[in-house]
Amino acid sequence: MTNPRMDGFRNRVGGLAFGGDYNPEQWDPGVWREDVRLMRQAGVNVVTLGVFAWASLEPEPGGYEFGWMDEVMDLLHDNGIAVDLATPTAAPPAWLTYLHPEVFPIMADGEPFGFGSRLHYDPSSPIYRRYAAGITTRLAERYSFHPALAMWHIGNEHGPTAYNEASSANFRRWLKRRYGDLDTLNEAWTTRVWSQVYTDWDHIEVPNIPRTWMNPSRILDFKRFTSDALLECYLAERDIVRSFRDDIPVLTNFMRFYRNADYWRWAPFQDAVALDIYPDPADPDSHVSAAFQFDLFRSLKGGQPWMLMEQAAGAVSQWKLNVVKEPGRMRLGSLQAVARGADSVMFFQWRAARGGQERFHSAMLPHSGPGSRTFREVTDLGREVELLAPVAGTTGRAEVAVLFDWNGWWGLEEVAGLPRNDFGYADTVMRHYTPLWERHHAVDVVSPHSDLAPYRVLIVPNAYLIDDRGVEAITAFARAGGTVVMSFFSGVVDECNRVRPDGYPGAFRHLIGARIDEYWPARPGERFTVRFADGHTTTASWWREDLHLETGTALAVYADGLLKGRAAIVANAYGSGRVVYVATLLEETAFAEVLLEEVRAAGVESPFPGVPAQVECVVRADEREEYLFLLNHDAERTAAVPLTGRGTDLLTGTPAAEEITLAPLGAAVIRRTRQAPV
Amino acid sequence: MTNPRMDGFRNRVGGLAFGGDYNPEQWDPGVWREDVRLMRQAGVNVVTLGVFAWASLEPEPGGYEFGWMDEVMDLLHDNGIAVDLATPTAAPPAWLTYLHPEVFPIMADGEPFGFGSRLHYDPSSPIYRRYAAGITTRLAERYSFHPALAMWHIGNEHGPTAYNEASSANFRRWLKRRYGDLDTLNEAWTTRVWSQVYTDWDHIEVPNIPRTWMNPSRILDFKRFTSDALLECYLAERDIVRSFRDDIPVLTNFMRFYRNADYWRWAPFQDAVALDIYPDPADPDSHVSAAFQFDLFRSLKGGQPWMLMEQAAGAVSQWKLNVVKEPGRMRLGSLQAVARGADSVMFFQWRAARGGQERFHSAMLPHSGPGSRTFREVTDLGREVELLAPVAGTTGRAEVAVLFDWNGWWGLEEVAGLPRNDFGYADTVMRHYTPLWERHHAVDVVSPHSDLAPYRVLIVPNAYLIDDRGVEAITAFARAGGTVVMSFFSGVVDECNRVRPDGYPGAFRHLIGARIDEYWPARPGERFTVRFADGHTTTASWWREDLHLETGTALAVYADGLLKGRAAIVANAYGSGRVVYVATLLEETAFAEVLLEEVRAAGVESPFPGVPAQVECVVRADEREEYLFLLNHDAERTAAVPLTGRGTDLLTGTPAAEEITLAPLGAAVIRRTRQAPV
Amino acid sequence: MTNPRMDGFRNRVGGLAFGGDYNPEQWDPGVWREDVRLMRQAGVNVVTLGVFAWASLEPEPGGYEFGWMDEVMDLLHDNGIAVDLATPTAAPPAWLTYLHPEVFPIMADGEPFGFGSRLHYDPSSPIYRRYAAGITTRLAERYSFHPALAMWHIGNEHGPTAYNEASSANFRRWLKRRYGDLDTLNEAWTTRVWSQVYTDWDHIEVPNIPRTWMNPSRILDFKRFTSDALLECYLAERDIVRSFRDDIPVLTNFMRFYRNADYWRWAPFQDAVALDIYPDPADPDSHVSAAFQFDLFRSLKGGQPWMLMEQAAGAVSQWKLNVVKEPGRMRLGSLQAVARGADSVMFFQWRAARGGQERFHSAMLPHSGPGSRTFREVTDLGREVELLAPVAGTTGRAEVAVLFDWNGWWGLEEVAGLPRNDFGYADTVMRHYTPLWERHHAVDVVSPHSDLAPYRVLIVPNAYLIDDRGVEAITAFARAGGTVVMSFFSGVVDECNRVRPDGYPGAFRHLIGARIDEYWPARPGERFTVRFADGHTTTASWWREDLHLETGTALAVYADGLLKGRAAIVANAYGSGRVVYVATLLEETAFAEVLLEEVRAAGVESPFPGVPAQVECVVRADEREEYLFLLNHDAERTAAVPLTGRGTDLLTGTPAAEEITLAPLGAAVIRRTRQAPV
Repeated sequence: MTNPRMDGFRNRVGGLAFGGDYNPEQWDPGVWREDVRLMRQAGVNVVTLGVFAWASLEPEPGGYEFGWMDEVMDLLHDNGIAVDLATPTAAPPAWLTYLHPEVFPIMADGEPFGFGSRLHYDPSSPIYRRYAAGITTRLAERYSFHPALAMWHIGNEHGPTAYNEASSANFRRWLKRRYGDLDTLNEAWTTRVWSQVYTDWDHIEVPNIPRTWMNPSRILDFKRFTSDALLECYLAERDIVRSFRDDIPVLTNFMRFYRNADYWRWAPFQDAVALDIYPDPADPDSHVSAAFQFDLFRSLKGGQPWMLMEQAAGAVSQWKLNVVKEPGRMRLGSLQAVARGADSVMFFQWRAARGGQERFHSAMLPHSGPGSRTFREVTDLGREVELLAPVAGTTGRAEVAVLFDWNGWWGLEEVAGLPRNDFGYADTVMRHYTPLWERHHAVDVVSPHSDLAPYRVLIVPNAYLIDDRGVEAITAFARAGGTVVMSFFSGVVDECNRVRPDGYPGAFRHLIGARIDEYWPARPGERFTVRFADGHTTTASWWREDLHLETGTALAVYADGLLKGRAAIVANAYGSGRVVYVATLLEETAFAEVLLEEVRAAGVESPFPGVPAQVECVVRADEREEYLFLLNHDAERTAAVPLTGRGTDLLTGTPAAEEITLAPLGAAVIRRTRQAPV
Repeated sequence: MTNPRMDGFRNRVGGLAFGGDYNPEQWDPGVWREDVRLMRQAGVNVVTLGVFAWASLEPEPGGYEFGWMDEVMDLLHDNGIAVDLATPTAAPPAWLTYLHPEVFPIMADGEPFGFGSRLHYDPSSPIYRRYAAGITTRLAERYSFHPALAMWHIGNEHGPTAYNEASSANFRRWLKRRYGDLDTLNEAWTTRVWSQVYTDWDHIEVPNIPRTWMNPSRILDFKRFTSDALLECYLAERDIVRSFRDDIPVLTNFMRFYRNADYWRWAPFQDAVALDIYPDPADPDSHVSAAFQFDLFRSLKGGQPWMLMEQAAGAVSQWKLNVVKEPGRMRLGSLQAVARGADSVMFFQWRAARGGQERFHSAMLPHSGPGSRTFREVTDLGREVELLAPVAGTTGRAEVAVLFDWNGWWGLEEVAGLPRNDFGYADTVMRHYTPLWERHHAVDVVSPHSDLAPYRVLIVPNAYLIDDRGVEAITAFARAGGTVVMSFFSGVVDECNRVRPDGYPGAFRHLIGARIDEYWPARPGERFTVRFADGHTTTASWWREDLHLETGTALAVYADGLLKGRAAIVANAYGSGRVVYVATLLEETAFAEVLLEEVRAAGVESPFPGVPAQVECVVRADEREEYLFLLNHDAERTAAVPLTGRGTDLLTGTPAAEEITLAPLGAAVIRRTRQAPV
Repeated sequence: MTNPRMDGFRNRVGGLAFGGDYNPEQWDPGVWREDVRLMRQAGVNVVTLGVFAWASLEPEPGGYEFGWMDEVMDLLHDNGIAVDLATPTAAPPAWLTYLHPEVFPIMADGEPFGFGSRLHYDPSSPIYRRYAAGITTRLAERYSFHPALAMWHIGNEHGPTAYNEASSANFRRWLKRRYGDLDTLNEAWTTRVWSQVYTDWDHIEVPNIPRTWMNPSRILDFKRFTSDALLECYLAERDIVRSFRDDIPVLTNFMRFYRNADYWRWAPFQDAVALDIYPDPADPDSHVSAAFQFDLFRSLKGGQPWMLMEQAAGAVSQWKLNVVKEPGRMRLGSLQAVARGADSVMFFQWRAARGGQERFHSAMLPHSGPGSRTFREVTDLGREVELLAPVAGTTGRAEVAVLFDWNGWWGLEEVAGLPRNDFGYADTVMRHYTPLWERHHAVDVVSPHSDLAPYRVLIVPNAYLIDDRGVEAITAFARAGGTVVMSFFSGVVDECNRVRPDGYPGAFRHLIGARIDEYWPARPGERFTVRFADGHTTTASWWREDLHLETGTALAVYADGLLKGRAAIVANAYGSGRVVYVATLLEETAFAEVLLEEVRAAGVESPFPGVPAQVECVVRADEREEYLFLLNHDAERTAAVPLTGRGTDLLTGTPAAEEITLAPLGAAVIRRTRQAPV
């Protein structure tokens, strides 16, 4: 997995990247000098430039103003700050949509999303794409060989879902590529139901009446199409900048738990995946959710370092309630990202805007200026990030994998008509991930198409919709000796959202060693007692299954209710492996025990057995050395972590003691010789 | 009330109909043979065919494919299964709406309801009607004399409300028929208020901005019009099939508590009324609500047997939470329908679909196949339905009637501007019906235009809006010696939604013997004490009236608050009858006592005085024999019911004991000689 | 402040006006005679005529029917009832919008607000304005010199917000007037953020996609524009009627806490400001909110008497729950308005409508007729209003002022992106006003542009957005010796909604003597302890500020949490004055104490120190005499108020005792010689 473009970038910034979005077009040139002076003071080595500068670069159709950007690029370069240069295509100028209002995306309610915000374009619009190619070409012509240029940043947080005529035309093209002929499509979408057979491609439109109950296969394909239509926009611009120069990394910025784009499909086209993440300081579990996200991003390109592209120095402004990060919180979250594979610590944005929608979004340099708490913390962090340079390029490894699949997500949440319709895929995945996080297990995230060979244990949360290839991969993993822990309502429908034939769970009946007569969602408030083989009991709720054992055996049974005596958890020996199927929503602690017991039984021990859950312990390593990150998420209490072996704390430069003491929200990064071969 | 068409149908199926919707167009012909084999195993004697088959029958405009249906009709007939053949007009094919997008109904929000679901047509659209007539004619041409044909099923669950230009044109035609001239309309709608006078018919549109506060008379007429526009669609297709053959019953399927169609107006045009009902197994009172619905359907055609056309064998899929029917629940609900006059037990649908919106809707033959619990229960039920053949054609009779009026419903719920705007008409009606159900009283449901002569007691729940004919009918009923129990806020506005003159309650002041100065809706949380003549007290809430007795006397007065001492319940001798007016929302038990006391006083005793409420006791009878249904709705406890006289349990074929023991969810149907003349 | 037009009106009605909206076009002429007879019985001396009569006056374009109005005007005049004649332009007739559907306002969701309610016009529509001018001209031609005419009433409750093309065109004209050139606009709106720069005026539209996050400056200006566009409509009609006759007062009716029109801008163009107010009888604090509103209306024209134009005699009908006014409530609220400066007691409406949206809105003459409780209370009140004639023309005075600013309101509530987005400006203002009301302090309401010289204390509730002129006025007030009590999150953005430079709170840093590093909205449920200098503590919640004292001193500090020891309340000596800044949301009683202590310290004593809060005490006065209103809002308990000096109770005509006893909901109005010079 060599990545010379990112190696070059890493060398250029001399370790980890530190910086943020920079929007000099909002300020007078006098401010630019002050900016660069303070950037240097803060240790900034890279800025993302021009994300929303289209109107400033091309104030009228074909009329360009590059002078100000020339000046800024030179100024940054003169001060040793590299540039991640953005194509400004996320926010078309007023003149473009005035000339071509058909570019505005039609929303789910049938009304256009007009001018005044961002992402006001239909990604399928040929007109939008033509103008986007235009400004991208001019930028690439001008700056491809500017010495400040270190990275290309294509657009921003690709996102709009559009229901335009152009979207329908593109959807039809996409469907033709996917299905070839209408018979295949009609079969895939089961259109004989409710008289929805298509006899002409032109009759197919985007599902433009989301207020009713639409064909679930059509919705599913529309989700896939929307992700691909956005990806087409990305690729078109990427190909342009690459045609000028091939050795600079190109990427765009992804979002946290973002349902509209299948990042497994996007990742191969990124030189590194980049994450924008805004954990809510008011959510006491947001750091666990962030850990999962960081693991996902490390996994998206098979363990390669990724970019923390945007985070907030303090509060954001897009929510109803925007709580500040208390002292230390921003530093800890930044180190957490690095611990889990980020090779950058970057922010949106450098200087807080005076106006516009995000005027109260915090910044590295906030409204209260260089004397502020925030700027002090940013500057302190900049120093620490520099000390962490040796970490750059290293990665983590794991023996436990968690399945995360956009198709499965869409199946559970985008389409009504399920036995119950309040599945929350992200929460479900976190329910499976959290026990592993609390025991300091290293975890990779996998797609249904990932190579599962490196893992001992595979966790499969509610894989209701999964394609045949994924089914076969999981089955083969078990057959070859792996342990699979699978949660209820998995393997139900195929990749077209059709119920798999021959009874539930069509995909996994042999794997779990049981058939399911019916899914029994619980009534509101209903709770059941579940008794384990050793006699201890716990409670469950929300979901049951009328499950009949075939080759499997019951790990636990219902102790009451109409399913009394019926299996609630099944274990099945499959090939050389073991499959545990949890057919109900166990109370949280009990579920954690079941899951962790299977992990242990598979030979995966917690690497930091005595350490309390809130002290996150993560290892990055290369062939020779490893870096142990110790992060105390407890904001009230000091923690002490015993250390085996010798090492040096990179943040203090001192030898690590036998016991590391971490202040509330404190951290240490211990560099030491690798404990075991990769 | 002879009904030779339904008599013919009953003879043909040899008693009760048993079956369900059958959608063979979703499956390969190989599956059809399996279907028919299993249908015979399950005792199916009739299926509803082709409800959503338009696209399969007419895949392109004027291009028909009847071969598959020929084959299915023959196959069914060869296996002794009769066909209820549907016109497929509830779901126009894609090509139709592509060619004529103006057919799509415009929704309340101004956007069209496009392709991808069902009922995507404006019932007023001449284009839709032309195509619907086309396919109906071709079906009738081809199958009117096919030996399998036993019934015509026109469309499905007629429903859409449309705000199209064609709707407005049709609305104007409807208004011209109703009012003749604009002066009359302006007077009826009180358009001088807020400057809404119409001086040209063309200025009148459907009330296409439901987001504001519209003229209440216009909304009311639009509700009536929408019901009638749908009825026009029904009648056009009915007339076509009848023009080919006149001796086959024609009907469509109605829905439970469906506000958009006034079934009192529809019923005369149905050979039998047919009900689709999906009681929620998670609702502990859903069987009481079903009982009311069954009584309504028996009453819609004056006591004639009706068709249970659709129910679910298990869970549905249209709700947020779709709970399964536990073992026995489906059987009990089916027998309950028969008890209250159904001559069929039918399901949606025969075989569960693999795809489409309702893929998790249960079926007689579910995804888990013939080995499933559900199919076993269906097969068992089929056997029992066959045993109940003698019941077919019999009916029930009642001395108590409950008023149920779509116009009144619309008045309370469709139009804002009432003293309080959270009236729930269905809940209100159930509040009046439930005490009667709990005491096993037979109840008919009546409209304001029904013949009231057969009844001793008439219950009038919140008849806020009632027409003059209804007022006169109720008044005449009391005058002639009947007992009327009427709830508050009745008789307030006329059929045009205008406040009746000369003080509240304009329609019923003399009837109740009191005038009402003001309606006093209660503040949130406010409760009042009500004291009865004998000194006992209860509480009331939600509503009071500043009521002044005229000829009436107080049955109960307020014991506190600003209306202290004022009457809360009024009794009035009127003609030879008695009227009790309940002017507040009594606590439930107290209200039941008041209501039941009036029933008793009118000489109507509970026919099964000792039997617990949850054991439903219902009698169907003909001239010679009666059938006593005993249904234990308690899912936990066995019940014992003493039996007077001799009889035979139709389900077991054994003589009935002196005490019938019913298992939880158990049932018995005792056939015996009539106890009393009808 | 002479006001000869209103003096003339006052002389004409001989004191206070008493009456209501009169809609004779809804009734037969026979009813008119009955109306006038009962009006005289009730003491009505003025009615508002024709508010919704456009369709009756101009039933077809250019075809007028004035005969009925001639007759009504004559009839009223013959009976000594003056007419407040309305231009009927709030409700264009059906023919107008049929001919010109582009007049319908496009709503926020992109759909037109069609015919069937009121206010169905885009105020920027030239077509609407042309027709409105037409009917206004004809009315003025015909009735300007009719002897019944006493006042012009322009339109009704000006209100619609429209997103039409005509609105955009007018918005552009408005912006050109405001900004002159696009560079200035782009700077004011900070359009460099998110690439929103405008290079052509034609590219600017009304913010027609409110479903997303729009530029806050654009939204702010659109609010201003909408208020001004409505004002243009008012002025156009006012100028027409005035061109016929100049000595008759012209006004329109304003609404309570109405966010869509900046009444400070409207007031100079009204001969008197007129209020429609519908306090909710179910809200136990609605009389305090009404008191504020009355003070605002008295202040809008600098203390001049105002018109109570519409109130309900009983229940309204526009809410979900419409509770009646219990006996005495309507009288008390009417006297309260007069106490705080109203020179009229008027109602919507005279006679309750039989139909239409407001058929259950109460009226002076309700559905239950002249024998009703309501009509009795109206008649009694009419007599009392006549007794209060000496009060007419007098006014109140105050030493405490509360800032109320529509721009600040829009800043807090119309625009997302604040640190927290659940500010409620009206509630906030009431939180500041209520303690003053409870201690019987006279209060004026001021705008940022009001003359502050008369006051000792200025209360500034959350003035987040305030213009430079307002900042300077407040600063000058303090400098000159005034006391300012200011609440948190004030002085943050400028009049363009841009964060003021150089740290928070940019506008008031020197005034409050502190800088704020960050705003710290509280987490849900979070509470803090605040300790005062004397050691006592209270709790606070919802909001904190990371505040650093400069010249200010801490009145109270946080006793816990991350801001422990930091100032929660700051006092700052500024010039000759004193500024107290409350940087958190104190528990209500504690806040009242802080506020009242500052009022006391500024030398303003409660004028009725011993009187319980629920007995409202208000003084109106002229040069010679004063009128002390004592209003007991307690519906349960009698109150006794000691009286100093001699006087006469105007309502009873008897000398006032030394202690006035007020029944529950009782009132007295004591006329006496002025106690102190104005």
